[in-house]
Amino acid sequence: MDTTLTGLLRGLIGASLAPKWLGAVTRANEGDAVGLCRALLSTRGEVSGIAIADRILSLIEQMDDDAATSFFHVLRDEFEVDRAAVLEASKAIQSGAPEALTDLQRAAEPPRQELFRRLNAAPRGTARLVDMRSRLLKALRHDRTLAPIDTDLRHLLRSWFNRGFLVLRHIDWSSPAALLEKIIAYEAVHAIGDWDALRERLQPRDRRCFAFFHPAMPDEPLIFVEVALTRGVATSIDALLSSPRADVSPESADTAIFYSISNCQKGLSGISFGALLIKQVVADLKADLPNLKTFATLSPVPGLAKALKDNNQTPETQEALQQLPGLTAAYLVRAKDAFGKPLDPVARFHLGNGAVLHRINTDADRSPTGQARSFGMMVNYLYELDRIEARHEAFAANGDVAISQEVRAHLKDAPTQPDKYKAARTA
Amino acid sequence: MDTTLTGLLRGLIGASLAPKWLGAVTRANEGDAVGLCRALLSTRGEVSGIAIADRILSLIEQMDDDAATSFFHVLRDEFEVDRAAVLEASKAIQSGAPEALTDLQRAAEPPRQELFRRLNAAPRGTARLVDMRSRLLKALRHDRTLAPIDTDLRHLLRSWFNRGFLVLRHIDWSSPAALLEKIIAYEAVHAIGDWDALRERLQPRDRRCFAFFHPAMPDEPLIFVEVALTRGVATSIDALLSSPRADVSPESADTAIFYSISNCQKGLSGISFGALLIKQVVADLKADLPNLKTFATLSPVPGLAKALKDNNQTPETQEALQQLPGLTAAYLVRAKDAFGKPLDPVARFHLGNGAVLHRINTDADRSPTGQARSFGMMVNYLYELDRIEARHEAFAANGDVAISQEVRAHLKDAPTQPDKYKAARTA
Amino acid sequence: MDTTLTGLLRGLIGASLAPKWLGAVTRANEGDAVGLCRALLSTRGEVSGIAIADRILSLIEQMDDDAATSFFHVLRDEFEVDRAAVLEASKAIQSGAPEALTDLQRAAEPPRQELFRRLNAAPRGTARLVDMRSRLLKALRHDRTLAPIDTDLRHLLRSWFNRGFLVLRHIDWSSPAALLEKIIAYEAVHAIGDWDALRERLQPRDRRCFAFFHPAMPDEPLIFVEVALTRGVATSIDALLSSPRADVSPESADTAIFYSISNCQKGLSGISFGALLIKQVVADLKADLPNLKTFATLSPVPGLAKALKDNNQTPETQEALQQLPGLTAAYLVRAKDAFGKPLDPVARFHLGNGAVLHRINTDADRSPTGQARSFGMMVNYLYELDRIEARHEAFAANGDVAISQEVRAHLKDAPTQPDKYKAARTA
Amino acid sequence: MDTTLTGLLRGLIGASLAPKWLGAVTRANEGDAVGLCRALLSTRGEVSGIAIADRILSLIEQMDDDAATSFFHVLRDEFEVDRAAVLEASKAIQSGAPEALTDLQRAAEPPRQELFRRLNAAPRGTARLVDMRSRLLKALRHDRTLAPIDTDLRHLLRSWFNRGFLVLRHIDWSSPAALLEKIIAYEAVHAIGDWDALRERLQPRDRRCFAFFHPAMPDEPLIFVEVALTRGVATSIDALLSSPRADVSPESADTAIFYSISNCQKGLSGISFGALLIKQVVADLKADLPNLKTFATLSPVPGLAKALKDNNQTPETQEALQQLPGLTAAYLVRAKDAFGKPLDPVARFHLGNGAVLHRINTDADRSPTGQARSFGMMVNYLYELDRIEARHEAFAANGDVAISQEVRAHLKDAPTQPDKYKAARTA
Ligand SMILES: [Mg+2]
Ligand SMILES: [Mg+2]
Repeated sequence: MDTTLTGLLRGLIGASLAPKWLGAVTRANEGDAVGLCRALLSTRGEVSGIAIADRILSLIEQMDDDAATSFFHVLRDEFEVDRAAVLEASKAIQSGAPEALTDLQRAAEPPRQELFRRLNAAPRGTARLVDMRSRLLKALRHDRTLAPIDTDLRHLLRSWFNRGFLVLRHIDWSSPAALLEKIIAYEAVHAIGDWDALRERLQPRDRRCFAFFHPAMPDEPLIFVEVALTRGVATSIDALLSSPRADVSPESADTAIFYSISNCQKGLSGISFGALLIKQVVADLKADLPNLKTFATLSPVPGLAKALKDNNQTPETQEALQQLPGLTAAYLVRAKDAFGKPLDPVARFHLGNGAVLHRINTDADRSPTGQARSFGMMVNYLYELDRIEARHEAFAANGDVAISQEVRAHLKDAPTQPDKYKAARTA
Repeated sequence: MDTTLTGLLRGLIGASLAPKWLGAVTRANEGDAVGLCRALLSTRGEVSGIAIADRILSLIEQMDDDAATSFFHVLRDEFEVDRAAVLEASKAIQSGAPEALTDLQRAAEPPRQELFRRLNAAPRGTARLVDMRSRLLKALRHDRTLAPIDTDLRHLLRSWFNRGFLVLRHIDWSSPAALLEKIIAYEAVHAIGDWDALRERLQPRDRRCFAFFHPAMPDEPLIFVEVALTRGVATSIDALLSSPRADVSPESADTAIFYSISNCQKGLSGISFGALLIKQVVADLKADLPNLKTFATLSPVPGLAKALKDNNQTPETQEALQQLPGLTAAYLVRAKDAFGKPLDPVARFHLGNGAVLHRINTDADRSPTGQARSFGMMVNYLYELDRIEARHEAFAANGDVAISQEVRAHLKDAPTQPDKYKAARTA
Repeated sequence: MDTTLTGLLRGLIGASLAPKWLGAVTRANEGDAVGLCRALLSTRGEVSGIAIADRILSLIEQMDDDAATSFFHVLRDEFEVDRAAVLEASKAIQSGAPEALTDLQRAAEPPRQELFRRLNAAPRGTARLVDMRSRLLKALRHDRTLAPIDTDLRHLLRSWFNRGFLVLRHIDWSSPAALLEKIIAYEAVHAIGDWDALRERLQPRDRRCFAFFHPAMPDEPLIFVEVALTRGVATSIDALLSSPRADVSPESADTAIFYSISNCQKGLSGISFGALLIKQVVADLKADLPNLKTFATLSPVPGLAKALKDNNQTPETQEALQQLPGLTAAYLVRAKDAFGKPLDPVARFHLGNGAVLHRINTDADRSPTGQARSFGMMVNYLYELDRIEARHEAFAANGDVAISQEVRAHLKDAPTQPDKYKAARTA
Repeated sequence: MDTTLTGLLRGLIGASLAPKWLGAVTRANEGDAVGLCRALLSTRGEVSGIAIADRILSLIEQMDDDAATSFFHVLRDEFEVDRAAVLEASKAIQSGAPEALTDLQRAAEPPRQELFRRLNAAPRGTARLVDMRSRLLKALRHDRTLAPIDTDLRHLLRSWFNRGFLVLRHIDWSSPAALLEKIIAYEAVHAIGDWDALRERLQPRDRRCFAFFHPAMPDEPLIFVEVALTRGVATSIDALLSSPRADVSPESADTAIFYSISNCQKGLSGISFGALLIKQVVADLKADLPNLKTFATLSPVPGLAKALKDNNQTPETQEALQQLPGLTAAYLVRAKDAFGKPLDPVARFHLGNGAVLHRINTDADRSPTGQARSFGMMVNYLYELDRIEARHEAFAANGDVAISQEVRAHLKDAPTQPDKYKAARTA
């Protein structure tokens, strides 16, 4: 494809007219991303605007990391608010002038926000802006001064990826291969080895997969969750994913196990869809299969091994292994981050959603990863429909962690709580 | 449908659980829109949030005008920015504190923006927010103090109805009747009398209709344009819409006439799609039918009769009628509004888009409306692809109005320019 | 469109090659339908075969009735079986030769069957063959010698329109206008006055419409039925179709009334879909709305007035009108055709399907048609799921007509059975 | 799924009514396929008929080979024509009775044809009949007396799989995985090792895949062809399928190489779609990419090694290998089957379609299969649009084989034609 500006416009309005049309718009060098950004903000965002936006995004996509960082520096500095104008508007606020607030709001919105909105008009614009944000987040790791750009981009993406625009779709063995290929690539919890393994997760009658999509990115899942329909709460991922295995008729299942949930878009990090997805899927499954009574996860405890090691609690003997349930319970319930929330990210996610820590399972994940990060331990979080919101509120307000009787019993057996956990909590 | 909150939740999560789930969230009286708005902002916007949003919108939809205005007053006052916080953030800006700008931006965004974002998650949320804005605009006519609400809502809708999200669709005789019915209802230029008349505009091979849609409102066109493929520029709407008439094979047509363009959503007024639509359709038609050389409108001159009356130029005699082309040209070119732009709204739209006033047609619209508002006069605006952007820029910068040689000749014949026109220009 | 043979091929394989390709195939004059039929049977039915088939069908479509009849004469005579070959094969059968049966079957199939199969490959071939049959049926009325052609065509169409290929589709207000227009045109029982009247039959929540389609004719319904969901069995079409009227929530309805069923394709006459459609719709509605207990028709009695007139029973006085229920019952139950089946075609259809004559309604159809053909009388036939097949069998085997107690009571009141009815039964 | 008859009906009309409805229809033992076949022919083929058809097909699907053969014996004997009736109708023909031919046709059609038509109404009926035929063909290998059943079934399937009903679909990387999995399984020429290999054949811009489908079997391809867009005629399958490789922009390609064509349905053997598919794809590609000038295959020579061995011409030395082009040409052109057509099945197919043997390629297929069956030789057949039909006719009428100058030259070099080839030709 011809990705020069003229080439792009040619695709939009025909060969002979493109150069003339473009000539009228901009004299910007078509290799100059910044110049084109200026031009884009000065036009009205129509046909030529689409071509310019397309070209800018192409140029960014071709930049190496250094060039991208330089470009982001310009976004940070040149497409920033006019501080003088903000100051003046601030003063008008203080003097109580009418319209002052609106003026201030306008002055406080950096021009790069409008730039991003116009870039969005390019073909596949939304997906490309999301990718641009993932590059920005990478650059941000080395250069915190780029944070204001991310503030703007995140603000915009959060607004565009509003719940009202998300579309829940089933993913199954009839889905396009081009999409399924992404499921394999994006699966972040229990790797999918090949297409046969994928089929095992999608085709059997007792398996389900759901994903959120945005209408402007119809080929790109945002997040997906894999579900097993079971009788009783599953306690081992190895059993769940073994092949061959006896399947269960959906009508006879009483439990839905959420055994894997993966975010797909790095460029949407910080804009969370997980709680929404789980609760929507719970509601949909319940409507579809009224026999389902229990909605639970089978979840890893990714931070366990490291936490135990940090506390010199790594179980070295066979005997010590028997302490693992207690240690796991203690880790999940007592180890806190600087905000008083669970240190374990998976615990933080599900407990924050209003789930209860239901059960601790030994020997539940024999994969090398499972052994290395958590000595094979896995846990179940339970989503009890009638208590989700109350638990979520208690967690949000006071950091209360909901646990079952069974977990409480494990906690009693647990070794005295290590200093490290205390430290974490008070950091 | 049961539109109580519990009823709505029941639909989402099943009968027995709804009351418990909801109980956890809110003790707001379910008939109290304001209380529910407060509750909605305090939850995390998930399943129960969807039910609450749905309920709030239902309550608003059932309000009479007085109740709606009262509700808007609360939105204006209670869901407004915290002025003290804005002042403080303003001061921090002045003292150059880090993060100060981000803090200010956050403080300057009224909570009702977030409220609107959460309302959007309700079923059909986007369409219903658009409808809510049309009610707001109605209330605004009587109460200008509601303007800040509209500022927020328009800001959000403009962002959500970004060009990148709009979908161009052909409308034809195979479109759903439920959609075509809306085309009949929304047609704002040349009324469509019945379904037979509609068929005449959609089914013949030399007619086209295009509309923009938003993915969250798939059944609601935002704007549509009707096009006739012709040989040469059509000069009479009566001829164009006569039935029966000889049609033209699309391949042999050299001209596309845009003879009607209608906005469909009052709640999106001020968020303009017209220029985008015309230019996109020009590009699409050109790609599809390379033989098309000319893209023109056949447009009404809606303000002509009133303007002539205001200037005592109403043609009373047969002889006077011969002056109409000159008077029309003078009106379109010289009568200006307070901003120096053409007084005639249709002229303002097309000339602002970069079109040229190409031709003045007498006896072009014999309908009662056509006679009453413009003595049967119609005009053609031409969209010349290679000059659109330059003309648009000249118009935007200097108010330059592009006219053809032919129109220039009419202007020479025109009576001396009336005082009123001057006045308008300098207002 | 260029419908010459070369023009058609050009569309299929490109401009420059068409003449050469065709030249190789046939030297048949492209205006000579019979010559092209010969050519079509001699080729292998691929790309050029498609063009030839298309051309033949176009030529037939342009023929006037006389030309069509002449063409059908050739089909009858030239594309007939080789009688000598049939005779020979018959003899081989009698002598018990192996393969003799297969040879006979082959010899007994006229070449026009293969011709029809090849014509089917033309664009829209199936729909056009159906139309050709409707022309044939018209010609057949004047010339019974064409019957063998129809035997072949009907044999083929019956095989192609096998139940396994039919697709049941809902028709509603979201269906394409181009399809709905056909519903208006094809409605054969209670005329649909305009699009508003159509909307009244499709859009309300208590109305349904279903049609059978064939995949090769996706735009052409084969047959459709209109259904009203009611509480109790409806007894008046005027009440059912009045506007405005109180609608019923589908969940609260206990009855589905089939108030109109129309065949759409004259060219498929004798290939009946009605019984299939009704039973499929009953099964679908039952699955969708388990509260439905009763499936009934509200049907006209089209032959009543004529039958009464033929028997000098036309009610002339107000008093006589009170005898109508009895007369109607007697007509439906006792008036028989030459095969011992009900004389009334609607009764024959529903009773033959296994329905029971349930109720006689006076003053049920005040339309001029309703008055003229049946003095406003209508009846309900009931489809009782658990008795349909038994009743169908009894009807098929013995001509048994199922009637309710109520109808039985009317029969008792009915005047002595007229001779005419007896005659009909024994004819 | 409950596959008893009652269970099936329950699915169609609801739980409580199924037994009653069925009771009325048939007292046939629901495990008795033959009894159910009799019942099916005696009903009218509606809702209960669908359940019976479904049950019969399920029973057949569960039969082992012996049981299936026994069932086929009953189809052969009991559902055969009434020979007495045929004889009588034959005599009527001889006596010239009117209607005699129609009567004979009816008598000569075995009842199993109608049985098959009714089985087709079952869910997935068409696909299951096709599968039933593949079982029949298997049984036929051991028992030729079953041939009459196949005559009937093939007659029906040929009529149902008429060109007018076939749908050409693109297959690409966006196709459903469940379909692509079948492409991997059905590929009969160059095996597709895994999903990555499949992607290489579908996703690159210079690759295409097309398949025919029947609307009643939307998930089952009937036949598919894989195409490479190239510059010049490709001469090595290894080069064509190598990975990575430089791709070609479709617009710049001048040649389409058909490098693999596979039939998918054993049950449709003898009903050929290959010529249709190739010619349709040629037409479609030409319309889509006018730059394509050459349409050629890259084909195996599957019978070469065996033929050379049979003639003691197997090349044993490096020197002998140089004779391979001549030997290949001689084999393809001179080795004939009993009907005077090429012995090599691939040659027979393409030359029969009207292609010309264009080129002989050495070292073109290094796969073990390619070495074993043809010493790595492959050939190109050319489809020259303007000569296809003439060549097809000459081949069909006289067995003329079209060859290029280049092949003619190879033939001159070829060893004297072996006796075996002569023998084959006169067999
Ligand atoms: Mg904003
Ligand atoms: Mg037949």
